[in-house]
Amino acid sequence: MADLKNDRFLRALMREPVDRTPLWMMRQAGRYLPEYRATRQQAGSFMGLCTNPELACEVTLQPLRRYAMDAAILFSDILTIPDAMGLGLYFAEGEGPGFERPLQGAADIEALEPERAVSELGYVMDAVALIRRELKGEVPLIGFSGSPWTLATYMVEGGSSKDFAKVKALAFNEPAVMHSLLEKLADAVALYLGAQVAHGAQALQIFDTWGGALSHAAYREFSLNYMGRIIEQLPKTAEGRRVPVIVFTKGGGQWLEAIADCGADAVGLDWTTDIGDARRRVGDRVALQGNMDPSMLFASPERIREEVTTILEGFGAGTGHIFNLGHGITPGVNPDHVSAMVDAVTGLSGQYHAP
Amino acid sequence: MADLKNDRFLRALMREPVDRTPLWMMRQAGRYLPEYRATRQQAGSFMGLCTNPELACEVTLQPLRRYAMDAAILFSDILTIPDAMGLGLYFAEGEGPGFERPLQGAADIEALEPERAVSELGYVMDAVALIRRELKGEVPLIGFSGSPWTLATYMVEGGSSKDFAKVKALAFNEPAVMHSLLEKLADAVALYLGAQVAHGAQALQIFDTWGGALSHAAYREFSLNYMGRIIEQLPKTAEGRRVPVIVFTKGGGQWLEAIADCGADAVGLDWTTDIGDARRRVGDRVALQGNMDPSMLFASPERIREEVTTILEGFGAGTGHIFNLGHGITPGVNPDHVSAMVDAVTGLSGQYHAP
Repeated sequence: MADLKNDRFLRALMREPVDRTPLWMMRQAGRYLPEYRATRQQAGSFMGLCTNPELACEVTLQPLRRYAMDAAILFSDILTIPDAMGLGLYFAEGEGPGFERPLQGAADIEALEPERAVSELGYVMDAVALIRRELKGEVPLIGFSGSPWTLATYMVEGGSSKDFAKVKALAFNEPAVMHSLLEKLADAVALYLGAQVAHGAQALQIFDTWGGALSHAAYREFSLNYMGRIIEQLPKTAEGRRVPVIVFTKGGGQWLEAIADCGADAVGLDWTTDIGDARRRVGDRVALQGNMDPSMLFASPERIREEVTTILEGFGAGTGHIFNLGHGITPGVNPDHVSAMVDAVTGLSGQYHAP
Repeated sequence: MADLKNDRFLRALMREPVDRTPLWMMRQAGRYLPEYRATRQQAGSFMGLCTNPELACEVTLQPLRRYAMDAAILFSDILTIPDAMGLGLYFAEGEGPGFERPLQGAADIEALEPERAVSELGYVMDAVALIRRELKGEVPLIGFSGSPWTLATYMVEGGSSKDFAKVKALAFNEPAVMHSLLEKLADAVALYLGAQVAHGAQALQIFDTWGGALSHAAYREFSLNYMGRIIEQLPKTAEGRRVPVIVFTKGGGQWLEAIADCGADAVGLDWTTDIGDARRRVGDRVALQGNMDPSMLFASPERIREEVTTILEGFGAGTGHIFNLGHGITPGVNPDHVSAMVDAVTGLSGQYHAP
């Protein structure tokens, strides 16, 4: 493997000194880029893109050609694991993802095989290995997975949901069954992320997209616990270097202290949290990632620059901040506005890291 | 007007002693009730129901016939004001609300007339007066409105939105234009709520459904400020009694201290906040309303009772708690499960109010 030329991202995750604040962007390989849309069309379908390592590699690298991002993130979907477990993932036009065979009860859960998260997902590992090779050490590669709770919501609801009625009814009425599902998913995610590391991922992010739909108590019981269980099982180092883990619970701003104690190296923040307050709350336990409102990219370049300044100033001096959006970039954003954000971070953040 | 027989709700809002914790339920007049669905069918359409004072009164009273609720809430829609301002509200089957003529820019905003929130909404005032009369003093009547920010999101987006791209672009790029819209809406809401009080409403709630989509700073600038501006303009008393105001920002759990300072008598909590923590944070500045996860009503009666106990115990001894869900009740809930919740609150809460 080529030596890593830019380790700013990995260093900031470990709260080691850096020359400026590193940045990347959730969903940076995405529909806002014309070159992404062209490759997506070439692939024929979204899953066609995910399952083709060459095309997945291509879209992963596209944003790096445009912007001074300090990390690449594997292009894939958060629902590969349930698909590998036999639920039949599909994407209907204009709708969210769906499963042909959602979980109907305890027997379906009993039959789930966590090992399939590795045995059936060779295409993901091939993509990881290829991307890592093609990166040529320019920046580190982030592997990722959905959180057990987030995967469970789709697997039980059969797709996206507004109120999570089915999965919450299962959690509230049959907690033992729900816990057996979450245990299996945690083990599957741990295997999956471990395999991504084995194939070249240098940092990991767990996307807990729907943890914020739970109550404070239910979040700890059904989501956070299982992210901790995953982290316990992950390799701490690879290639002689720490493999840092970022946990991102959208809507988790009230629970930062608890999240900071789950074993992760860094906590992702959505834009509802003041990053300065967040830093005071978590102290030096974890690094913080975030947290510009993705919709700020619809504002003018001047306004974007102002917002970047506010966030950098909010975190303040010292390491431990990875600049990012507070959620994935929205389709329809002008790519030049991303440049404005990147230029602001790279141009303005050095002063917070003066030796 | 008949004397008020049950003032538990109004007393708790003012943090005065009560014999047990009062309760009501957001969207208590709603689709989970078969009698509501029958009246809705009779009305022909949702707006037909809203604009017919007799039918609006009927559905307002329906949940009170089943459950020991301590308040009635006017049956209406949060988007009556923009409709009255000429935007043309419609409800397409299976979609959310929409506007035929969304706001396109500064000229459209300039043309908006706040007075129309009263002059065009006689049907709302007729419903308020009729409901108040028909309540015969059994329980107090809550009037309500959407918050200026929440109304603005629909008026600019033209309907529901996932990312609020248009309204946020307006707020970020042309803050002066956005503020002129929000000022007009605040004044319209103040007139509207004032007229509801004049027609018999005894307490008021401002529903800030989409405040939680903003960043911490943008929330204060674009939502909370304007709820404060409304409260300043409202009559403090009517019929010789304080008219308490509840502010409910869904997703506002991180900002409770600021919300508690906006001038409201009570703050609504969604289910992501621990109500005990919330009480410690706001002290005796405001009463708290909430905060059971609406999806808990899909659980068993035993589990519901357990959750009610946890919330009552979480708030602890003393007045200042109004039991409610953390958001509107979900269609599809079994009405017997609501009974389980109501029985638990009425049966178990007395111990927290021992003299």
